[in-house]
Parts: sequence; structure tokens; C-alpha cells
Amino acid sequence: MMIEPKVLKGFRDALPEQEIKRKKLIRELEDTFELSGFVPIDTPALEYTEVLLGKGSGETDKQMYRFFDNGKRDVALRFDLTIPFARFIAKHSHELYIPFKRYHIAKVWRGENTQKGRYREFFQCDFDIVGIDSTSSDLEVLLLMHRSLASIGAECTININHRSIFNDMLKKLDVSKNSVEILRTVDKLAKIGRNEVLTLLTELSDAEKAETILDFIQAEDCFEKTLAKMEKLSEIDGQTSEGILRIKEIYVALQAMGIENDFELNPSITRGLDYYTGLVYETFLKELPGIGSVCSGGRYNDLAGIYTKEKLPGVGASIGLDRLLAGMEEIDSAARTNRPVSVLIMMLDNELIGYYHKLAGKLRDAGISCEVFPENKKFKNQFRLAEQKNIPLALICGSDEKNAGTVTLKNLDRRENIDGVTEKTLIETVKTQLEV
Amino acid sequence: MMIEPKVLKGFRDALPEQEIKRKKLIRELEDTFELSGFVPIDTPALEYTEVLLGKGSGETDKQMYRFFDNGKRDVALRFDLTIPFARFIAKHSHELYIPFKRYHIAKVWRGENTQKGRYREFFQCDFDIVGIDSTSSDLEVLLLMHRSLASIGAECTININHRSIFNDMLKKLDVSKNSVEILRTVDKLAKIGRNEVLTLLTELSDAEKAETILDFIQAEDCFEKTLAKMEKLSEIDGQTSEGILRIKEIYVALQAMGIENDFELNPSITRGLDYYTGLVYETFLKELPGIGSVCSGGRYNDLAGIYTKEKLPGVGASIGLDRLLAGMEEIDSAARTNRPVSVLIMMLDNELIGYYHKLAGKLRDAGISCEVFPENKKFKNQFRLAEQKNIPLALICGSDEKNAGTVTLKNLDRRENIDGVTEKTLIETVKTQLEV
Repeated sequence: MMIEPKVLKGFRDALPEQEIKRKKLIRELEDTFELSGFVPIDTPALEYTEVLLGKGSGETDKQMYRFFDNGKRDVALRFDLTIPFARFIAKHSHELYIPFKRYHIAKVWRGENTQKGRYREFFQCDFDIVGIDSTSSDLEVLLLMHRSLASIGAECTININHRSIFNDMLKKLDVSKNSVEILRTVDKLAKIGRNEVLTLLTELSDAEKAETILDFIQAEDCFEKTLAKMEKLSEIDGQTSEGILRIKEIYVALQAMGIENDFELNPSITRGLDYYTGLVYETFLKELPGIGSVCSGGRYNDLAGIYTKEKLPGVGASIGLDRLLAGMEEIDSAARTNRPVSVLIMMLDNELIGYYHKLAGKLRDAGISCEVFPENKKFKNQFRLAEQKNIPLALICGSDEKNAGTVTLKNLDRRENIDGVTEKTLIETVKTQLEV
Repeated sequence: MMIEPKVLKGFRDALPEQEIKRKKLIRELEDTFELSGFVPIDTPALEYTEVLLGKGSGETDKQMYRFFDNGKRDVALRFDLTIPFARFIAKHSHELYIPFKRYHIAKVWRGENTQKGRYREFFQCDFDIVGIDSTSSDLEVLLLMHRSLASIGAECTININHRSIFNDMLKKLDVSKNSVEILRTVDKLAKIGRNEVLTLLTELSDAEKAETILDFIQAEDCFEKTLAKMEKLSEIDGQTSEGILRIKEIYVALQAMGIENDFELNPSITRGLDYYTGLVYETFLKELPGIGSVCSGGRYNDLAGIYTKEKLPGVGASIGLDRLLAGMEEIDSAARTNRPVSVLIMMLDNELIGYYHKLAGKLRDAGISCEVFPENKKFKNQFRLAEQKNIPLALICGSDEKNAGTVTLKNLDRRENIDGVTEKTLIETVKTQLEV
């Protein structure tokens, strides 16, 4: 009986073309993280449900892949990398240096509704600094976002805000008790429009306050002007909001580095009802802002509070790998073509297998990817593989040529032969051809 | 209520030190695979149980993490990368070039008894050539094993054999009908000793045949002598075993490449009751043969037969990443120390945050990993972080030095100061210090 080779709904195979691109992206990100002193960790895919649920919410619970293992333990697949990291740091804090800077790129699983174009298995890419609350660490995460996105050729605008400014503004308006509902309403702006939001906000406060709130979340035409307005609207009894002071320090540092124009102060960025307590940010591709934030995050007060008494404030960000990959491909169509192999060594003579593989070894030693066609088949068949794999050069050598110590290179893009290439000139000639 | 930050039995966190090493090893292997034209793929961690079980065996079944998902589907975590690959190739054969050369490095899960020091979550690293049965493709996999292990500095001996030689020898002895039991018995040689095996084999055949079988699986003192003996004992009616012919072709090619001494013909390698049908191999670290094979595999006739009518012969190998990592560490203790960060920029003055991060940016642009200490704390505290993270250089700069355009570098290993380093000479000086 034949079994249908199907995959689960919401799950995907990665074909080589996609996987090569993802691996390349991940490597570039890892290199950038490490240049900034962030180190990698790993945690199990499967954990005790109790550990993953933490304080839990109904929504997360429903989406979890949860079951009893063969030892009757209540277990689940991780649905993000934040909770396992909190558990990790509570368990290992004595073995780590604090402040601890880690990154983690791995798969997570959520049994979400797939209709929204979402997948049930996807990668997360998180980086955090834990154990400190300082301007410099806020800045370090912002700079790492800036540098990592630049390293992969993504031109971005990083939108920043600070949660406490919004809260202070609400306090000043004396509507703090409705802050959660107000936040929720404000987050719907893009979806339901200004008038509808104004009506809802009026119900939660009054018409004048609703106007003030809407004015507050509207950015002005430059960083300084927005900052000045936010400062005014959140100042209580002549006291500047703590968030304003932090944002100012960050802005001065960005100016000192000459990169302030890649950052925008955006008072409408609130990160919804997430656990952030300080700085928050979202990042948009300059050429494709419509696909949404490709890197978001913020500062939180207490990462691991449900697992340890140690107070561990932190700041971190998460890169949306799949969204970023899709966006980058849309922008740069050249990124769509891979050339996994540079040279195909043709098989003309079974007696020469050892010689062909010896030549392959030489090319590989020089860092040139190549392969030997595995059988003595017609040229037509061998060239077809080169075409399918997008291999630019073929190396042709029969026994006469072997005796003469030469090979022929064929540039398959330009349909040109380079005859009489000797073993001595082989590497150089291949490199020259690959550069053309 | 506090939740204990525990992990499941048989599962592990990877601390930075371990994870850095694993990532480095994986990257080196990936680079080598790609030089040989192997391309990466990925498959879901979770699949239909029916797909993973295939023809199934009781043993595998018991070890699987199997459950019903929220949509009542019978699903399981993959327990190897071979079955998902078979399913992958059956599903995508029309989108791939055949012969298809892929590698896959990913986690698998088995609810095994952990007493044996085995883990329930571990990495597999597989590479295969599918769609062809030829000497050159057998050779390519052997050469890739040889090259990948050399690339990570592991000196190895690759033991090879061919299943059909053993089968032909049994046929010649007219004991083929007991071949499975004989294979099982022979595999116990190291465990139960020669005498016990002889007794069991005699029961399965007769005393003389038992002696012949034991003689057959004993290697002689060189490749050629072993080959000659095996040829003689497996030759039927003057007809040389197909396996002998294949091994001879491979040996001639290895000689042409001058690497035949890294390969041994070992007739006792049978790979047990696995699905291999041709060439089989196991690889041992020269300095630590006792830890067992670090890379094993072989040729199989029909990879995806339960999912497709297409006949797909293949040849492949699997590297035991965890075992290899442990072995390499035992051999080379220098591999035990990581230096994830090269320079710690000390924080002396809050006003200079932007300047410190600007210097950090310059170092990172030059490929030098560094970080800014996140707060203005006592030197003692800042140096403690450098010590914990094994950072070799500190960069010290106050406002006077900033105005003079200089910094001081402190070599923390040698407790030496290099004063008056200018922005122009900074990169060069750091590089020189790191080389010392």
C-alpha cells in the first residue's frame, strides 16, 4: 500500500532554493549579533506545559501543541522563544554573566488559523540584553537592529516610542483607569479610522481628552518637534516624563553617531498589550512599509518573575525572518537566483573516475564548489543537469587530454570553450570565468 | 506562585559556550557540503504519524512523540531525517534535479531510555545522493565524509564494506536462508566474544561454515589482502561478487587521489539490519576509536518506495554531531575556550555614550567584535565582566582623552596598557594586540 507523501496543514518543506536563502540570511544576522557581543543559546523544542504556560492566557493555550508524552508528562512545543529564555535564565543565572546578551534563532509552533496566510511552524529570531536597565543597553539593541538590517541590505526606518510617555499623558488627563481600553482603541486607528476612534475615545473619557489623545499619537514632521509635543502633553507638575528623558539621551547618542535620520519618534507605536514597560520599537522596510514591521521589541521590567525571585529587567527585539525574506525578495529580484555549484566535471570515461574526483578536490581546496557527473552518460544529459542546477562552467576531459595534462572549460552562459587549460592554470582560469 | 524552571528528562539547554562550538562545527560542515554541490533542504518537525511510521516497526513506534493535534490529526515529531527526506523526495521529485544531492542538519526526537546516556532531543546531520547507483556517487559520498571530517580537524579512518559480498559468501556456503540471524550473531562479536559467536553460528550452519564466516569477517593487515580473501570466499562458479567489483573501482580511484591510506576494508562492518543494500561504512577518530563511529551510512536500493512508484536508489551518510563534538573536545582541549568578544569599551562618562557606541561601530565595521559596558559603574565591576566573558582587550576613554582624540587600550591577558591610541591607529592596534 502506498502512503501519500503529504505534509500537515500550515507546515511547509523548504526546497533548496528557499533554504539556501534562509541560511544565508541567518548567517549574516548571526555574524552581526556576534560582532556586538551577543552569544547564541539553545533550548528544547519540547517543555513542560506548566513552564510554557506561565501565568497563561486562553489564547496561547488554545494554539499550543500540547500532549501527554509516553511518561504521562503534560508537555508542549514552544510557541515563542521569550518564555523558554525566561525559564533558561532563571535556571542558569548562576552560570551566566549578567548583563547577559543572547540571541536565539529557532523554530516555534502555533496551531493558529492558517487562513490568514500564517504558518503553524515558523522561525523566530530574538536578541536581548538582560539584567540591566540603562540608556546604553536600550541604545545597543537599537544599534544592533540598525546594523543587522543594514548587513543584509535592508534599508529600514526604525520607529521608536516609550510606554511611560503615553501613560504619563493619560495620567495628566486623569484617565489612567481606562488605560488598557484606550490603548486598545488607539491601536485600531489604521483599521477603523480616525472618526470611529474619536467616538470610542470620547466614550472612555470626553470629547476634549479624546482630541488630545489623538493629537498626542500623531507624529510631527521631525523627531525634535514630535519630542517637544510629547514632552508638553506628558509633563506633570513641571516634571518631565521619565520616557522623554530616556528618548532624549538616545537621540543625542544617535546624533553623535550621525545616524539619527534612520530613526523616527512615533507616538502611535505602543506594541499593544504586550509586556513592554519602557522603550518600544517597530521597523519598516523603506521600500515596502506596507508589509508591516520586520523587527519589533522593547524594554520589559521583569523577564523571569514567574520562575525566580531575581529581578531581571531586559530589552530585546525580534526579527520576523519569513516576512523579511519575502520582503527582500520582492525588492531585489536578483536575490532570487542561486548558484549553488560553480563547476560540473563531465564524466567521459569510467577509467578516469579517480582523476575527475582529484580535479574536484583541487577546485574545492581552492574554495570553488563543484561536482562530478555521477555516470558516463550522453553529453546532452550531463548538460541538462548543469542547466537545472544553474551551473555556469563545465570541465571536459577525456583520456587524450588527461595524458596531455589539460582540460577544456566550457562557459555555459556564453557558450564559449576555453581549451588547453593546464592543471597549473585551472584554478585561475575558473576564477576568471566565474567573475565574467 | 513560583514555577520551577525545569526541563524535561533527556532534554538539555545549550549554554553559549556549547552553542558557539556547535554552530562553528555546523558551519564548517555546511561549507564543505556546499563545496561538493550538496544543497540544504528543510522539512517540518511535525508530520502525520502515518507518513513517519511507513512500514513501521514496534521499536520506533514506542519511541515516537505521537499525539492528536487540535484538529484531531494523528501526528508525531520526526525521529530521524531519512524518512522525512524520503517523503520529501516523493512529494517534490518533479521540482528537483535528479540525481539530487541534499544535506539536512536538524533536531530529531526519540523517547528513548535515557539511562544509556542518550538524549531525547538531538541533532542529526545527513547527506545523500539520490536517483543514481554508480561508483562515482558512492565515491563522492566517501570523499565528502573524508573532506568534512578533515575540515573540522578530525583525523579519521573510514571503514568500508559492501553488503552483497557478505550475502554472496553466505550463498556460497548455502546458508542464505539464515542470513538475518547470522548477521545478528556476527554483529555481537565485540559484545559476546569469538567463542560464543562460534557456538551460535555453528547452530545456524555447521562448525566448518561457522569458522569460514568468522574468517571472512576478520580483516587482514592491508586493504589488498583483505580484498583478495573476501573475493575468494564470495566467488560463486568463478563469478566475482558484484560488491567486490564496486569496492575495487572505488579503491583504484582512491589510489589515483593518493588518499587510500585513510580508508580500510573492514568485512565486519555490516550496519546491522539497516536497509542498506550495497556499500556500507563507519568512521572512527584515529585518536579516540573507542567512542564509536562518528559518521556512518551506505547505499540503499529504494529510498521512497512506500510513497512513490519511482525507484530512487541512493547513497548517504550521517554524522553524529554530538559524539563528534564530544570527541573533538577530548582530543583538543584548546577547542574548549571561546572568545566571543574581543574588546570591552568601558563606560566612564554618561555624556559619552554616543561616542562609545560610535567607537564600537568602527570596530564592528572592521570585523572586530566588541561591546560597550552598559552603565557607568566602578572599574572593578566592568573588569569583572571582561573576565567572565574572557574578553582580552579593554578600551578606556574619558572626556579628556576624547578631546585629545585618543583612547587607552588595556591588554587584560598581559596587564599592559597601550596609551595614546588615536582613532586612526585604533583598528590596527587592536588587531596587533589580538594576534599577540
